[in-house]
Amino acid sequence: MNILAIDTSTSFASIAIGVGEQIVAESLLNTNRTLSARLVPEIERLLATAGLAIADIDLFASAIGPGSFTGVRGGIATIQGLALAGAKPCAGFSSLAMLAMNFSLSKSLICPMLDARKGEIYAALYDCSSPLPSPVINDSVLPPAAFIDNITAVTKEPVIFVGDGALLYHAQIAEKLGEQAVFAPFSLHSPHSANGVLLALHASKYGVLLEPSQLLPAYLRASDAELMKVKAA
Amino acid sequence: MNILAIDTSTSFASIAIGVGEQIVAESLLNTNRTLSARLVPEIERLLATAGLAIADIDLFASAIGPGSFTGVRGGIATIQGLALAGAKPCAGFSSLAMLAMNFSLSKSLICPMLDARKGEIYAALYDCSSPLPSPVINDSVLPPAAFIDNITAVTKEPVIFVGDGALLYHAQIAEKLGEQAVFAPFSLHSPHSANGVLLALHASKYGVLLEPSQLLPAYLRASDAELMKVKAA
Repeated sequence: MNILAIDTSTSFASIAIGVGEQIVAESLLNTNRTLSARLVPEIERLLATAGLAIADIDLFASAIGPGSFTGVRGGIATIQGLALAGAKPCAGFSSLAMLAMNFSLSKSLICPMLDARKGEIYAALYDCSSPLPSPVINDSVLPPAAFIDNITAVTKEPVIFVGDGALLYHAQIAEKLGEQAVFAPFSLHSPHSANGVLLALHASKYGVLLEPSQLLPAYLRASDAELMKVKAA
Repeated sequence: MNILAIDTSTSFASIAIGVGEQIVAESLLNTNRTLSARLVPEIERLLATAGLAIADIDLFASAIGPGSFTGVRGGIATIQGLALAGAKPCAGFSSLAMLAMNFSLSKSLICPMLDARKGEIYAALYDCSSPLPSPVINDSVLPPAAFIDNITAVTKEPVIFVGDGALLYHAQIAEKLGEQAVFAPFSLHSPHSANGVLLALHASKYGVLLEPSQLLPAYLRASDAELMKVKAA
């Protein structure tokens, strides 16, 4: 089983290729506004690095959010296109679950947190003590203070914070939680699609693969365009 | 402070670029026997990805082993060349410490283990409960059974095993240690040079940088060529 997994939920895109239970190539790149121009060439380059052709990929997987609307849409569309062209299945996974897996096997609960703009965050609380993360608080979009209250309602133990939202709201989290808040070292704030390969392989083993058309984003809130439509109505 | 860090100790090479306390690009590639031809082009590509030139790098860092003789030599030589040409300092770090950092903030001790051929492993035991790993058993080269005995002499608590040596000797480790042995999920067996950037930044802060000529490999045992010379003498 050869798997291509990508995550484009943040400005730090990640692509990984797994052959069975082995990661053979992974690439992380800061995309900012250039994602659409760089994603497909980067996938092609990574396949070449691994000595594989696109036709060798059996399963195409993407983070379905939450995260940047444009990023998530672009990533899903690319994976849908590749899967459709090759008549292959897709798998989707949470960007937050994947980020939490940077602390796989940790005995502490993990809070992946991404900047959602407008003073809000995308965040969740995961138990990562086994290789597959299990949600303690589901993926949410909230102001950071409200999410921190949700954490203190479920645990008084140390929680590991990771992601660009944790960096942005570091002072606020530290002030509210004190020693309960543990921050990831800077080298571990990046999303790793290798963990997406693991999630996709699990989906494949348990028969929950998708048709390309079924791979849908999990935005958690309406886009700006939709919000403006509501306001105008 | 812009840092380029590489690890070529195993067949899975890794390159990362850090700008201050932020990783801006990382690449992992399965090199097998093609490392020497691919390392410099891959560094150039990654710099371009990050919008940086080689002259923008302030500190060049490399894993100094233990690991593949040819890999370590090639990695160090490349970093020495880049640093020398730009009159910049170098930093070296243990490949095993860097690998252990895949489990940063873990409350369990971490055993990074690489295949050293000849029925031996390169291994160590690290406390990674804070971002900088602290050795409990120093980097060693030993038969796996002997190293496992060293572990049981210092702890009866669960230990997380990571690296290609842990994969190769999985059955033997599991048999000797039972539930004390916890194995990394497959997505976390790859070395990440992002962690090397963190180690290099720390070396820089504490003023322990090296001249290019001082960046030396830590092989832990003599090379085949040296062993043959001894036998012949």
